[in-house]
Amino acid sequence: MSEHATASRLRLSGLCFLLQILLILLFAVLVRYSPEGSPGPCPPQLNCSRRSPDSAFQQPPGIQDVHVQVLLSFGLLVAFLSRYGPGSAAISILITAFSIQWAVLIQGMLYFFLNGKIYVGARSMVSADLCTAAVLISTGAVLGRVNPVQMLLLALLEVTLCTVNEYILLTLMGVSDSGGSLTIHTFGAYFGLMVSRVLYLPHKNKRKREEQQDKGHQMDVLAVVGTIYLWIFWPSFTSTTTAHHNAENWAVLNTYFSLVASTMSTFILSPVLYEEGTPRMQVQIQDATLAGLAVMGMAGEMLLTPFGALIAGFLVGLISSLGFRFFTPVLHSRLKIQDTCGVHNIHGLPGVLGALLGTLLTLLATADTFGYRLELVFPLVAQGSRTVTDQAFIQLSALPLTLLLATLGGCITGAVLKIKVLRCCPAAQCRENPGLREVAEEGSDPSAGDKELGISTLV
Amino acid sequence: MSEHATASRLRLSGLCFLLQILLILLFAVLVRYSPEGSPGPCPPQLNCSRRSPDSAFQQPPGIQDVHVQVLLSFGLLVAFLSRYGPGSAAISILITAFSIQWAVLIQGMLYFFLNGKIYVGARSMVSADLCTAAVLISTGAVLGRVNPVQMLLLALLEVTLCTVNEYILLTLMGVSDSGGSLTIHTFGAYFGLMVSRVLYLPHKNKRKREEQQDKGHQMDVLAVVGTIYLWIFWPSFTSTTTAHHNAENWAVLNTYFSLVASTMSTFILSPVLYEEGTPRMQVQIQDATLAGLAVMGMAGEMLLTPFGALIAGFLVGLISSLGFRFFTPVLHSRLKIQDTCGVHNIHGLPGVLGALLGTLLTLLATADTFGYRLELVFPLVAQGSRTVTDQAFIQLSALPLTLLLATLGGCITGAVLKIKVLRCCPAAQCRENPGLREVAEEGSDPSAGDKELGISTLV
Amino acid sequence: MSEHATASRLRLSGLCFLLQILLILLFAVLVRYSPEGSPGPCPPQLNCSRRSPDSAFQQPPGIQDVHVQVLLSFGLLVAFLSRYGPGSAAISILITAFSIQWAVLIQGMLYFFLNGKIYVGARSMVSADLCTAAVLISTGAVLGRVNPVQMLLLALLEVTLCTVNEYILLTLMGVSDSGGSLTIHTFGAYFGLMVSRVLYLPHKNKRKREEQQDKGHQMDVLAVVGTIYLWIFWPSFTSTTTAHHNAENWAVLNTYFSLVASTMSTFILSPVLYEEGTPRMQVQIQDATLAGLAVMGMAGEMLLTPFGALIAGFLVGLISSLGFRFFTPVLHSRLKIQDTCGVHNIHGLPGVLGALLGTLLTLLATADTFGYRLELVFPLVAQGSRTVTDQAFIQLSALPLTLLLATLGGCITGAVLKIKVLRCCPAAQCRENPGLREVAEEGSDPSAGDKELGISTLV
Repeated sequence: MSEHATASRLRLSGLCFLLQILLILLFAVLVRYSPEGSPGPCPPQLNCSRRSPDSAFQQPPGIQDVHVQVLLSFGLLVAFLSRYGPGSAAISILITAFSIQWAVLIQGMLYFFLNGKIYVGARSMVSADLCTAAVLISTGAVLGRVNPVQMLLLALLEVTLCTVNEYILLTLMGVSDSGGSLTIHTFGAYFGLMVSRVLYLPHKNKRKREEQQDKGHQMDVLAVVGTIYLWIFWPSFTSTTTAHHNAENWAVLNTYFSLVASTMSTFILSPVLYEEGTPRMQVQIQDATLAGLAVMGMAGEMLLTPFGALIAGFLVGLISSLGFRFFTPVLHSRLKIQDTCGVHNIHGLPGVLGALLGTLLTLLATADTFGYRLELVFPLVAQGSRTVTDQAFIQLSALPLTLLLATLGGCITGAVLKIKVLRCCPAAQCRENPGLREVAEEGSDPSAGDKELGISTLV
Repeated sequence: MSEHATASRLRLSGLCFLLQILLILLFAVLVRYSPEGSPGPCPPQLNCSRRSPDSAFQQPPGIQDVHVQVLLSFGLLVAFLSRYGPGSAAISILITAFSIQWAVLIQGMLYFFLNGKIYVGARSMVSADLCTAAVLISTGAVLGRVNPVQMLLLALLEVTLCTVNEYILLTLMGVSDSGGSLTIHTFGAYFGLMVSRVLYLPHKNKRKREEQQDKGHQMDVLAVVGTIYLWIFWPSFTSTTTAHHNAENWAVLNTYFSLVASTMSTFILSPVLYEEGTPRMQVQIQDATLAGLAVMGMAGEMLLTPFGALIAGFLVGLISSLGFRFFTPVLHSRLKIQDTCGVHNIHGLPGVLGALLGTLLTLLATADTFGYRLELVFPLVAQGSRTVTDQAFIQLSALPLTLLLATLGGCITGAVLKIKVLRCCPAAQCRENPGLREVAEEGSDPSAGDKELGISTLV
Repeated sequence: MSEHATASRLRLSGLCFLLQILLILLFAVLVRYSPEGSPGPCPPQLNCSRRSPDSAFQQPPGIQDVHVQVLLSFGLLVAFLSRYGPGSAAISILITAFSIQWAVLIQGMLYFFLNGKIYVGARSMVSADLCTAAVLISTGAVLGRVNPVQMLLLALLEVTLCTVNEYILLTLMGVSDSGGSLTIHTFGAYFGLMVSRVLYLPHKNKRKREEQQDKGHQMDVLAVVGTIYLWIFWPSFTSTTTAHHNAENWAVLNTYFSLVASTMSTFILSPVLYEEGTPRMQVQIQDATLAGLAVMGMAGEMLLTPFGALIAGFLVGLISSLGFRFFTPVLHSRLKIQDTCGVHNIHGLPGVLGALLGTLLTLLATADTFGYRLELVFPLVAQGSRTVTDQAFIQLSALPLTLLLATLGGCITGAVLKIKVLRCCPAAQCRENPGLREVAEEGSDPSAGDKELGISTLV
């Protein structure tokens, strides 16, 4: 056992080493700073069809710097902390550190490639952060049931597939989804759920035990701090990636109204749905906040009007709460999908609803109501090469496409992770691996489950 | 009992539902995005007499976005966490979510109303945040002695009265108080104290028990995190609402010097005032930081000079510390005012002192020393329609007016909250209400008091 | 004992009082707001040879305000929390509050002095923050072995010496070190280590006990929150002090890549170096993050290229981890230097490596590769008054000079702190001093050590 454990510890170490050396080599061959002249309009050779980071260039660079750091990922990272304690943070930071580098490469290939070189700048970092967010959402679905080596492979595959999906949607189809309702939330959630389905192991009903652990005082502190991070940084981040041009930023206002309303929903449904002894209020508020943000991904920058944002946030808050109570158990018992952090309720459903809402608003878009914003949100419509109905149809068709790619990708990734050599018992591994052990022990702990059930099928 | 508890749980749920539906309807009828042309100078039809948000318009929108998120409220929210633990956060977030929506409506009626519509934008959000801050200050005085339903009603009434007070001071009287020494800190503190007075219940001396709980390690972590939030975000926020125009921002420097000096005061008085076993250093530092910020509300943007800011912060830090030691007990025993979080020492007194300091500095204002700042800080003086003495007199007379409105408003609100149907025992309610229960248990806990004293007068 | 304890408590109180009064008087005599006309180019009378804050002036003031608040110091403050718990925060905040005021004065004398007055503005605050960071690094080396009174004197002396070192390097020698690899990290680390050496007391092997305490769950939360603060705020801060002028900011990208790679290093070496029961992953990640940031201080704004930043971060992460494992014990047993927080591995070595890297990059600098950046990074080279080789030689010679000044300064400061009247037992003092006591108890606790070893040589 001890020998095996040492082997598995060194395997993670070795994999990290190999990946980092590989990344350094690829960076050395491929990656350069953005060309000097680029702060102005994007040079025509570079594939600048992604509207959002492009417009960020027109701001003074200081603002970008602030925004680059305002990592979407960290909101999520902190959000997960509330569920799994600081133990899961080590693994999340590893995933973040790897995914950002990998995403800079993969996305650079598609967006910032010119004459055999990738040119990185502030907008590469923003794109990479967004992609990392999708990976972190997926890990939320499988947390506690895969070991760190599997996590790294999951990140490797998902970053690639997520970028391909994003490229098809944003560049090839011309979908407007700057906040990532589809490309981040929906893709990340369903990808993670499918991986979870493929890796399904019976007798691992963690939900109940996890909820008991949830009561720790510690977790409440983290949930509150995480919620505050989200309130402060998320609308601010939204403003980086969405269209604005010296006018009031609709996306900020809409996101803000949506999260306020979805928070109210929690207080409406929580006393009705739960008896005493259920998940704590703070965690529920955090979930509702995330759902309220996810639904604004696509629709945020459109003419939603303040009361529309209130209604959307209100409804999605209700749906998310109901989903936790009624849908997650069904998902587990019928579809054999374990959803450790409830990403389906927090990201999956709100993302889908956000895409539908975005489609509806696209139908209603006219040059009168949008003004010069039409050029920023729907450049193809503004240029006359597409009608509003066409655009709405394309926005709508992006939803099943994303779902298809996410499920397919999740199946493939799950199958890869199931390869025997990778399936080293996460419990055994973690038991010997200081620092990573808590992911299992504090989170939804397979090793404890094994002990209780007297099985050790994983090794 | 169980039936009663279920009833009270559902009452909160129902009230939240009704309020949110009402808000959505009002938003649907009244609220629209700011008119397209408005990013430039404020259109004359809109009531743009509030100088501060107006000048914010001249900045690139990205900066506003950052600032909008830098919620004053969150500083306070985090600050209260250190006293009452994450349990109180659920109720604070509920109050915040409701107050922001309500304040957007009420303030919109007075400031951004045109042709039957309210036009919201970044500055509406900043105003709403400021108003929410006043509500959070008031709740600090009564935390643990009112139930969530009463809290919501308190927020409903206080947002209205606070906006009226602000409108009278800033728009009708032309008082310069952009940092809110009077409109936020003084109003919020004395409003809350009067509500606390009206709701006074004997045999509820919590202070001692609370201090013992204060020793929890948890609270110290939150106090430190809260202090850091305040240091980082508050001066930054000050710069949004105060006058600056391509020059050094005096308000940022003054606020910064003031909080540094008030922090030093804590280390001077704490060893003198307290024996071992008293409230912890971290909480005292946080209180002094808040006091140092409150005193700069009005005077911050005036010609205070760096050493003036140091002196003001130093003295207010001493006064706040002395107030906690000597004045709070008197307040409780003589005036029968329970001040759960000590808002009188942190916001009340520093706010009043800040207003007096602001009056003094107004008297000394001349075109020579202020330069073009005079136009921004005292537009009426710069235009010649008022002498400096008149302005100083008006600044001074705003103090008793605010105190009067706050005390009157607090009395009325307290009387409303005393209505029998609302006075459901918060302990009983919370006992059944998962998530909200900790407000009572961890804060100043009436239910525990009831048990100890063998009374249950509240039900 | 009790009388002695009261005396030592009052001594801290009295010293704070005296220092604050002194600071207020000095501010009253010397300090004024920046002259009105200064937002434009720096007036020639003021000594504006420090390029970095100067260029900050060209940005709209709102951005400065944000940056001023993004205190480098707080990153460090939060970082130390993870080691010593909230108890050490009280003393860190005291040091911060005092050092900032003192640094404004001392640095103002050298940089912003004109006609007998010091003119303060946003850039004074940034400079003062940087200097405070060096002091906080030094305190990390001696934490737990000096009392608060000694800490204040250490800050008093170090701010002065650090400013002198900075003045010699940046202004007299024209070294380019805007991120402070030499002036902050190297100086702070070796200064603190020398003070630690002079104050060496045998039988105080804390490291083992500290590591056991490190396991507290609390500490992990703080380490994670601290790491997130560093990721968010540090690269943002870097962009304030480094050269940028409407183009991509290399410093932000380089810093970002470096910290990502150094984080990966932790996961490579940690399983190899440590058995179970060693310092936790979260704390190691934080250390690696700090090391990755320190190495980018000088080289960050130069033409490092993305893969260069990855390699530098990767190697420094490895070196820092190895240093903790192999070098810190040698430092203690052979050189009799106790390094409480491991500042040698986190700041000392990375700072020196960063300076060497910066020298190398200076040698490679050409007008072709740097473009207009040459003017910003190496103004003297761009003006033709220096060759690149000269500049590189000067950059290199700044390293031994800084080491010399830091060690000499540390020796003198240590000798001063050894004066009998100051050497009041920190344990005794802290035992009686509520709030400050935890520094000893939770950190590396001399009083507990005394009890265990049965000695009390300190009194």
